[in-house]
Amino acid sequence: MKVGILTGGGDCPGLNAVIRSVVRKGVQQYAFDFVGVRDGWRGALQNDVVPLDISSVRGILPRGGTILGSSRTNPLKHEDGVRRVRDTLAAQDLDALVVIGGEDTLSVAAELDRQGIRLVGVPKTIDNDVSGTDYTFGFDTAVGIATEAIDRLHTTAESHMRTLVVEVMGRHSGWIALHAGIAGGANVILVPERPFDIDEVCAWVKSRFKIHYAPIVVAAEGAVPKEGQLILKDRTVDEFGHVRLSGVGEWLAREISERTGTDARTTVLGHVQRGGTPSAFDRWLATRFGLHAVDAVKDGDFGVMTALNGTRIVRVPLADVTGRTKTVDPSLYDEFGVFFG
Amino acid sequence: MKVGILTGGGDCPGLNAVIRSVVRKGVQQYAFDFVGVRDGWRGALQNDVVPLDISSVRGILPRGGTILGSSRTNPLKHEDGVRRVRDTLAAQDLDALVVIGGEDTLSVAAELDRQGIRLVGVPKTIDNDVSGTDYTFGFDTAVGIATEAIDRLHTTAESHMRTLVVEVMGRHSGWIALHAGIAGGANVILVPERPFDIDEVCAWVKSRFKIHYAPIVVAAEGAVPKEGQLILKDRTVDEFGHVRLSGVGEWLAREISERTGTDARTTVLGHVQRGGTPSAFDRWLATRFGLHAVDAVKDGDFGVMTALNGTRIVRVPLADVTGRTKTVDPSLYDEFGVFFG
Amino acid sequence: MKVGILTGGGDCPGLNAVIRSVVRKGVQQYAFDFVGVRDGWRGALQNDVVPLDISSVRGILPRGGTILGSSRTNPLKHEDGVRRVRDTLAAQDLDALVVIGGEDTLSVAAELDRQGIRLVGVPKTIDNDVSGTDYTFGFDTAVGIATEAIDRLHTTAESHMRTLVVEVMGRHSGWIALHAGIAGGANVILVPERPFDIDEVCAWVKSRFKIHYAPIVVAAEGAVPKEGQLILKDRTVDEFGHVRLSGVGEWLAREISERTGTDARTTVLGHVQRGGTPSAFDRWLATRFGLHAVDAVKDGDFGVMTALNGTRIVRVPLADVTGRTKTVDPSLYDEFGVFFG
Amino acid sequence: MKVGILTGGGDCPGLNAVIRSVVRKGVQQYAFDFVGVRDGWRGALQNDVVPLDISSVRGILPRGGTILGSSRTNPLKHEDGVRRVRDTLAAQDLDALVVIGGEDTLSVAAELDRQGIRLVGVPKTIDNDVSGTDYTFGFDTAVGIATEAIDRLHTTAESHMRTLVVEVMGRHSGWIALHAGIAGGANVILVPERPFDIDEVCAWVKSRFKIHYAPIVVAAEGAVPKEGQLILKDRTVDEFGHVRLSGVGEWLAREISERTGTDARTTVLGHVQRGGTPSAFDRWLATRFGLHAVDAVKDGDFGVMTALNGTRIVRVPLADVTGRTKTVDPSLYDEFGVFFG
Repeated sequence: MKVGILTGGGDCPGLNAVIRSVVRKGVQQYAFDFVGVRDGWRGALQNDVVPLDISSVRGILPRGGTILGSSRTNPLKHEDGVRRVRDTLAAQDLDALVVIGGEDTLSVAAELDRQGIRLVGVPKTIDNDVSGTDYTFGFDTAVGIATEAIDRLHTTAESHMRTLVVEVMGRHSGWIALHAGIAGGANVILVPERPFDIDEVCAWVKSRFKIHYAPIVVAAEGAVPKEGQLILKDRTVDEFGHVRLSGVGEWLAREISERTGTDARTTVLGHVQRGGTPSAFDRWLATRFGLHAVDAVKDGDFGVMTALNGTRIVRVPLADVTGRTKTVDPSLYDEFGVFFG
Repeated sequence: MKVGILTGGGDCPGLNAVIRSVVRKGVQQYAFDFVGVRDGWRGALQNDVVPLDISSVRGILPRGGTILGSSRTNPLKHEDGVRRVRDTLAAQDLDALVVIGGEDTLSVAAELDRQGIRLVGVPKTIDNDVSGTDYTFGFDTAVGIATEAIDRLHTTAESHMRTLVVEVMGRHSGWIALHAGIAGGANVILVPERPFDIDEVCAWVKSRFKIHYAPIVVAAEGAVPKEGQLILKDRTVDEFGHVRLSGVGEWLAREISERTGTDARTTVLGHVQRGGTPSAFDRWLATRFGLHAVDAVKDGDFGVMTALNGTRIVRVPLADVTGRTKTVDPSLYDEFGVFFG
Repeated sequence: MKVGILTGGGDCPGLNAVIRSVVRKGVQQYAFDFVGVRDGWRGALQNDVVPLDISSVRGILPRGGTILGSSRTNPLKHEDGVRRVRDTLAAQDLDALVVIGGEDTLSVAAELDRQGIRLVGVPKTIDNDVSGTDYTFGFDTAVGIATEAIDRLHTTAESHMRTLVVEVMGRHSGWIALHAGIAGGANVILVPERPFDIDEVCAWVKSRFKIHYAPIVVAAEGAVPKEGQLILKDRTVDEFGHVRLSGVGEWLAREISERTGTDARTTVLGHVQRGGTPSAFDRWLATRFGLHAVDAVKDGDFGVMTALNGTRIVRVPLADVTGRTKTVDPSLYDEFGVFFG
Repeated sequence: MKVGILTGGGDCPGLNAVIRSVVRKGVQQYAFDFVGVRDGWRGALQNDVVPLDISSVRGILPRGGTILGSSRTNPLKHEDGVRRVRDTLAAQDLDALVVIGGEDTLSVAAELDRQGIRLVGVPKTIDNDVSGTDYTFGFDTAVGIATEAIDRLHTTAESHMRTLVVEVMGRHSGWIALHAGIAGGANVILVPERPFDIDEVCAWVKSRFKIHYAPIVVAAEGAVPKEGQLILKDRTVDEFGHVRLSGVGEWLAREISERTGTDARTTVLGHVQRGGTPSAFDRWLATRFGLHAVDAVKDGDFGVMTALNGTRIVRVPLADVTGRTKTVDPSLYDEFGVFFG
């Protein structure tokens, strides 16, 4: 059997760990052959592949990024896209694909599956917003990096009367903000799922100063103030039609300074959260996803995605889990209410 | 309501996070009063407690160890032990206890519960061997530290023909060895659940040298060679009557050197694995355990232990989960077979 | 002899290490008594001190911040400031002060020394811009944090065609930018000492894309484009009359995007660089500074500052080293020319 | 001009940074050609080289180990060794060598220089025991790793009455032990330069228990007890005829336990200290050494070694600095006396 592997979407620590375990188990246990499709769906459209064997995956487990490259190319937006993917599969003699990606990449996979292309999906995203799995790999690494940054800010918070704002990733969901904020002991956590009230944020900030300990505010990049608190010039509208705030971290520091008359500073972690070596948890999860993905290929169980369910890896139909973002459940957010403000 | 909190057994990153969240939620949401029982069951026997309020738990979230101290004192081994614990509860006017500990501490808690003492348990152990919960806090931190050590050894493994042995914690279970070994890309992983064959280990080592990349061997401290491979002078028998090997890391390096004629070196991580700041995952888990433990006290739901089940925190009866060690399931170990040797 | 210790200016990892070693050696070897002056010169003006003995400094070596608090209060800007400092010294029976601070704090110390107040200075600043010493403590920690962030960005740089800009600390000097940029393998390093040419930066960025590896640009917060490249609305003028750019990181990302037509993203590390535990190097340096500062007090050698000279700690007159910023020597910057662009 | 580069001796973080900067500057600024000699002097004896250009050194800055491989081969111990090195230089058309190594490798270089081979040395060793330079690269990384381990042990030391022993690298010098011990706040630091008195160590341990804080003992692997305290079976004699103790960490834990009647545990860091990514300081130093080494080649200034002198890189004659180990100056050890016991 000959199998292609592709990685789509943004960087995510653990991609190489998946590639390695798919190839290791596929070659050693099932005698499969592999090729790597370059730059996600772009390579699938353009018949651009590289050979992939055990020596190609040696030493890549701890490395961030993806040895196959990635892109945001979407074959469904190309006329003839599906046919061209089929052509590549035929040209390379591929029996199946292992598709590693986030919501966008897996939605394409679900559609290709409907059109008869044999594939197995593996969910990845540092944002943890893919449905059907307890966690995605990359998320634990991102939370760890953001938590360490918050830890460092506590030093300043202990000795200066200054609000510290940290902007973390999460355009559509607040998983990183919530996890890192709780793990880091932040006083205010703002997530896209709940438009915030800037007056309430400022009231929290002021109450915090009264106990002589400066507040730390964690904001997901997709957090927005509630209706009417965002003046026109700060608004942007994203590709989904959602009103967004360009640079929520800077905006918060400015508003808090002006409204409370106290100093506020911002840290914007940006891409630092998605680079570097994966955490042990993410390597473990990514490795298991790879082992189970190749088993699904072996079983001819296509159109599924590997998923974490408690401590077990299971398969769920791609059709059931794509097309919607897994957002933070309000009850989970409320669970931590005593730590806010 | 007035509640005592105690921490028993060895150090574990996350103990302070539990204490903090119990007190924060108990005081802010339920208006409970708290005292800290000093040094685990010792303080409960000797009526040794400290006041515990919101200011006492400020800033302790990222700190390793426990602000309450710990001990291995077992009240059930003291004549009158249970009565003395009762006396302390009466003297301090305590309505309930929150007991944070591993297998030993929780087994005591289960017995005290049977005898009518009102308490809620919270499982902790870096070894991850408490039954009834997907994970215990402290484990992720220990795995992270061990994985980072293995990562560093790969540098040497890439350029010298020398076997590197790492001895990690785990006297009765191989969870740390398995997780860190897989996350670190080790070539041999030895766990207490499976007596190993030193001849097979040496064969793996030699096969590894053939591809010019030195082998990394991870051994849980409780790993033992199979019947007959351990000469008398290296044997010890532990308090449970199990044959053990004193210093398995050193023993392996010596045997591998002698049997293969190649150099071997050992790293013994020891207590480094249980100290320092908890990982973000462990802080999240420990914080949630604390929030749910105080809810159980509020609900009058005693004799239970908080547990992780997928992404949810649940309560399980202490009587159901104590008295046995959660060991590594053979099928999980086998799942990773392609990476060994 | 009774000695006061004060810490002034911004946070800096290593402050507690100095306090600890001054007290340890002063008490154990010279039988000195100590008090801590709270919040830098503010406490000296307001006679606000705390007792300081060996138990007060236990466990503080690895902790960021300062147990004494800090402030930017300048007694020379208060009418009667010098007299009030003298009054505090008299009220507390202090024979001398150990003054730990940056350029501003030490300049005040130099003036107080001229007016007869007995004191010894210890230089601290993450910016490394105090004259007369090879390095200040705090700097190595800050460089380490910034370098780790750049390391993580390389992951993205390897797989996406996107410029990554990192804004690091350094309002008046480029030490952190230069050290972290070289250690992290950045392609463009912009420092306050050399106004940069945005056209040249864009040319470097474009040449980098040609080898299919995205550029990483490190900018000190005080870096400015050369005359005429900064339009009015982005200009601010600081308290020294220097033209500055508010948010150089964001400005660079915007200009690079617009001028090259390629994507650019920013990381602003902010206060993350000055918090958390000091590096081993900084703890070593801070500890030695403390030991030598108390020796200077013992010797009655006042008006001096401890300084690193190679591997030795020496004393230099405060009058010789204050009043000017130690900037990056152009020849040092040029030494690394081959790595730029 | 055509130049060969070789790396000899044990692993050391920063080797790749030197190789990269030699090649980058040599190619870009001087239009030199380069080859890499494989596995240190072995490749020089056997005419085993690899091409080395700018693309070969891309991305290696943060990586531990050496892309050229290393060995402990000594050409002076081979009959005809020097002639064979000459033959390789001739066969490859090499005008000069850049030799990166520790005491052993550089001593060979000094002898080859005396015999007319044109070369420039670069000192490396995690042990910091090369004479003529303030520091060698690799040392700061090793100290950082050991310090972080000690930091973690403090958690246990705060809550258990148990001595914690850490064995660190340093067979002939105590630089790592002293730096990491001071930075980590250890209570006892044992170095090869000073045979220790086990009775005094035990007295320190006991005095420490009295303040209810367990002692941390750092021992260089080459530390030995004074005359008469080492029984025969624990003695080994090394290749230089020095009496050594095999496994000083384990020996100390055993002796302390037996002599004081209290528990003691050991951490043996081993090769963990020499692997993984170099610290920012080591990358900076290694990069500068490389830049200056290639300048020396350009200048025809052979038989020298690059060295750190304060903040400047200088050249020192190999003949002056080889043949002796740089040990810890007793006055430096004494400087920290107040922290011991």
